Amino acid sequence: MLSFYSRRDLNFILNDLLNADQLCQFNRYAEHDSATFTEVLNTAEKLAGELFYPHAAKSDANPPVFDNGRAVLIPEIKQAVDAFCENGFIAASFGPEHGGLGLPEVIAQAAAAIFMTANLPSTAYGTLTIGAGRLIESFGSEQQQQRYLLPMIEGRFFGTMCLSETHAGSSLTDIRTRAELQDDGSYRLFGSKMWISTGEHDMSENIIHMVLAKLPDAPPGVKGISMFLVPRRCLNEAGEADSRNDVVLAGLNHKMGYHGSVNTVLNFGDNGGAYAELIGEPNKGLFYMFQMMNEARISVGLSAAALSVAGYQAACSYAGERRQGRHPDSKDPAEPMVPIIEHADVKRMLLQAKSYAEGGLALCLYAARLMDDARVLEGAAAERAFAILDLLTPIVKSWPSEFGLRANDLAIQVHGGYGYTKDYPVERLYRDNRLNSIHEGAKGIHGIDLLGRKVLQDRGQVLGLLLEDITVTIDEVRKDMSAQQLHEYADDLASACETVSTTSKTLLSGVISTGLRTSMANSTIYLDMLGHVVVAWIWLRQAHIALGKLTAGVPPADQNFLNAKLGACRYFYIYELPMVKTQCVLLSRLDETCLKADRQWFRE
Amino acid sequence: MLSFYSRRDLNFILNDLLNADQLCQFNRYAEHDSATFTEVLNTAEKLAGELFYPHAAKSDANPPVFDNGRAVLIPEIKQAVDAFCENGFIAASFGPEHGGLGLPEVIAQAAAAIFMTANLPSTAYGTLTIGAGRLIESFGSEQQQQRYLLPMIEGRFFGTMCLSETHAGSSLTDIRTRAELQDDGSYRLFGSKMWISTGEHDMSENIIHMVLAKLPDAPPGVKGISMFLVPRRCLNEAGEADSRNDVVLAGLNHKMGYHGSVNTVLNFGDNGGAYAELIGEPNKGLFYMFQMMNEARISVGLSAAALSVAGYQAACSYAGERRQGRHPDSKDPAEPMVPIIEHADVKRMLLQAKSYAEGGLALCLYAARLMDDARVLEGAAAERAFAILDLLTPIVKSWPSEFGLRANDLAIQVHGGYGYTKDYPVERLYRDNRLNSIHEGAKGIHGIDLLGRKVLQDRGQVLGLLLEDITVTIDEVRKDMSAQQLHEYADDLASACETVSTTSKTLLSGVISTGLRTSMANSTIYLDMLGHVVVAWIWLRQAHIALGKLTAGVPPADQNFLNAKLGACRYFYIYELPMVKTQCVLLSRLDETCLKADRQWFRE
Repeated sequence: MLSFYSRRDLNFILNDLLNADQLCQFNRYAEHDSATFTEVLNTAEKLAGELFYPHAAKSDANPPVFDNGRAVLIPEIKQAVDAFCENGFIAASFGPEHGGLGLPEVIAQAAAAIFMTANLPSTAYGTLTIGAGRLIESFGSEQQQQRYLLPMIEGRFFGTMCLSETHAGSSLTDIRTRAELQDDGSYRLFGSKMWISTGEHDMSENIIHMVLAKLPDAPPGVKGISMFLVPRRCLNEAGEADSRNDVVLAGLNHKMGYHGSVNTVLNFGDNGGAYAELIGEPNKGLFYMFQMMNEARISVGLSAAALSVAGYQAACSYAGERRQGRHPDSKDPAEPMVPIIEHADVKRMLLQAKSYAEGGLALCLYAARLMDDARVLEGAAAERAFAILDLLTPIVKSWPSEFGLRANDLAIQVHGGYGYTKDYPVERLYRDNRLNSIHEGAKGIHGIDLLGRKVLQDRGQVLGLLLEDITVTIDEVRKDMSAQQLHEYADDLASACETVSTTSKTLLSGVISTGLRTSMANSTIYLDMLGHVVVAWIWLRQAHIALGKLTAGVPPADQNFLNAKLGACRYFYIYELPMVKTQCVLLSRLDETCLKADRQWFRE
Repeated sequence: MLSFYSRRDLNFILNDLLNADQLCQFNRYAEHDSATFTEVLNTAEKLAGELFYPHAAKSDANPPVFDNGRAVLIPEIKQAVDAFCENGFIAASFGPEHGGLGLPEVIAQAAAAIFMTANLPSTAYGTLTIGAGRLIESFGSEQQQQRYLLPMIEGRFFGTMCLSETHAGSSLTDIRTRAELQDDGSYRLFGSKMWISTGEHDMSENIIHMVLAKLPDAPPGVKGISMFLVPRRCLNEAGEADSRNDVVLAGLNHKMGYHGSVNTVLNFGDNGGAYAELIGEPNKGLFYMFQMMNEARISVGLSAAALSVAGYQAACSYAGERRQGRHPDSKDPAEPMVPIIEHADVKRMLLQAKSYAEGGLALCLYAARLMDDARVLEGAAAERAFAILDLLTPIVKSWPSEFGLRANDLAIQVHGGYGYTKDYPVERLYRDNRLNSIHEGAKGIHGIDLLGRKVLQDRGQVLGLLLEDITVTIDEVRKDMSAQQLHEYADDLASACETVSTTSKTLLSGVISTGLRTSMANSTIYLDMLGHVVVAWIWLRQAHIALGKLTAGVPPADQNFLNAKLGACRYFYIYELPMVKTQCVLLSRLDETCLKADRQWFRE
């Protein structure tokens, strides 16, 4: 088994927690079966191990170089990405009607997670192409699907998202890029886009940029944003990439981490205007983008979880080998030093990291399963799945970005001085992961999204559905007399749900009594808090399954794995969940300490 | 004012919180006065701004290069370090009897903090020389002081600490470096030392390595460790650096950050043995080293606090300039975007960072003041100051390393995508600071030191003294009727002290009832917890002083600063201190989740 992830854990999440095979009962996924899924994951593991993992440190040490308008990358990235495409990992999540494999999202994301644990930056070329392709699949014309999407699914064209500008990162309302209609129905596009991942390279025949811009007569704000497709090379009649479009690499961003994924500033239209095609209808660009953004956000959460898994795996491996010190009650220097995994504090760090890493991974794949449910279920059931997914999206994006990062931090700490060096992967994994709380909406935005748009605006209705689902688990555990050791956690979780409910009502009343700004002032804390409750739920489900299997009897080889699930669950309930109450006390105060802080305070 | 630190805050801490001037009333510091102190800080600020700050990013981008047994550094480092020495910043903290300036520790450390905020890695050359010199000052022979210490104080020789070996970082018991007595009374030393900061460079006439090693007949373990002085170049009769000693640069460590401070592997004695002189008596090396280590640990805490101050200052400056988004209740795109400092969540991040950064800085300088108290006071008062300093040392080392680092993390977050790039200092400051929880004893060691050696072993007596001091503040605040707005914090702090006391007793009883390992299993959490209580105390003291000044009346220019102190104190009491109770509940459970975790759990 490769050491950057645990296949056993992935299988447990997919098979035992999420019942992925069950999806094959639905028409949409009827052509697949358990064997296909295994084969997909086997292939991902093989490619990840052979082509992604080996160059992760090298591409970190050799970031892309700007050379005369080109971005030069180490060659191993292309080899890896080519194999990713050739083996159908872009096609995986597109429907067969577009030449895709039509895999369930939960399997496609699980496969993506394997690549991400091995080498996230090199995986980004594929995942961004999937995201861009999804927009064309959902909103492009038939001709656009034919000319652009097909070669993307085939891995010949890659894709990017071009949203931000230097002055408008989080605030898309304020973008200035503009597009003008031409006589032939195409557009000329002018503007500069910032933070464009995989925006320039020579790895594919073409790069298809999905660009947000404004039409001359557009209404102000977000209602005046349209989406355009801007190819790096314009296509000829035969659909082949031909002459260079007016898209120029203006510079590279030099980042803390994520080096292998080239991050660019792109200038559009400096030489007369970039050829652009409108996607869908005018002024609906942000609406379209948000369809994809929700997927992208889950992908960010998955990236963060994957990096934390990689860090956790490295820490386990190091802690089992490195010998240092003795137990507090045995200081005889004649005794051999113990492996550091024997020290209680190292075990604490590993349990904490495990609870974050595996909890985050399970959370993200649960979200992918909800995407599948929203597709295969019908009527109210589909709507319900979609509503819960929509509520959870800011948590799925942010929780692994925050706590998975802490797992990476712990992985450094477990390694001691070695963890601070480039001889071990853990400091790189940390630096790669630090981006995830920033891109696709900085964390603060997701707090506002969760509390403001998802909880307060619908008066807690969807939150109520989530709490219902959590209560189902609580009841199942409580009714299971062979699971008595979990009953205390069920009680803790029930109590936490009660607190969430009361606190949310207080914040809702606060909107009327003290105003929206006050209720929203601590939305980031609400985000962390609800994230912990959801992950506690996921841990209880995992523990309940693990205990059931242990009770039923499993081979000795599986016992450690299942006992470890119980241990991590116990850790999470004893060390982590109690914070929820502390945070809810704060939230219920409708505290204005931060809101009312005078900006002049920060000028000294 | 330069933007990497706040002189106003430093003055507030020194003058208002710590009454540094008062030290001039004692004989030891009688030759100094307030004007000298100001002059020292002015000089530090000038040099830091002109020679340290400007090359911080450059030395990060250009780490030392190993070239044929030499370490090649960018030339700006030498210019800065030369000025540091020439202006007496090494001499500052040595006694006049050794050619030093004999400044109070609190002033010397405050000056060091200024350099550290500007450029920590370049400051390390000076601070390590001070540490090595302190060992010779305290334990060296008169001849050693004459030949080695004097040129160090003059800035001609630099110094290092050589403790760790590749297989023995935290566990000094297990070092293998050995030394053999020669006929002339000198020693030949053999071994390899790891993680040696500033271990090789061409910036000084000589480098004096303070090396831990074992004599052939030494008893096993820590009681068999001796300390040796090993010069890079042996001295001739005239005391000049002459022929190269048998000390070879075996390699450089390539680190996540702290690039400007060259970190080395040194081989001693590969060619017949390195010339070495014994310091003090045989087998007392670790005892000697720990005298210095306590200072070094305070210096690590100060480094961490300084880096967090630099990050916080950068974040304040960016947040005041960067415009992005609008308030939650005003989304009209026709309105201009607001500076992000207007957003409640950004203010929250800034208040949190401020409470960590300024709280940590004040904590470290308070420790320096305790060092001075231990020197100038007499009898029981001196012993009391020393005992409290000894208790606090693991907190002073670890709290800013943990929470100052979080302030650096928040500084990145405030900057959004820009914070993740090398165009802004905040990601570098984060990387530099990440080391501080690792070196001079990894965090877990300090938890064990605090709970095991400082609290349980003396049955909480010194902890009782600390709580007494905290209670003095609580009583002062409660008695001050013009400080009613602080009474709730005094109550919170009193309650936290009560909880600390009860919890510590529970842990003490636990040693008997369930054993040492159980009581010690969560010592890192005890460390964080008690750190928060101590910093809450320091914030209450700052707030009380600030309120007193505001009540007495100050010029408008000072009001923002003082109100900000009140705001940060409020933040700390409402958002941070409540965690203490949650942690104490956990500690009081004598929970064995981590202790009893099976190492096999982490093999999957």
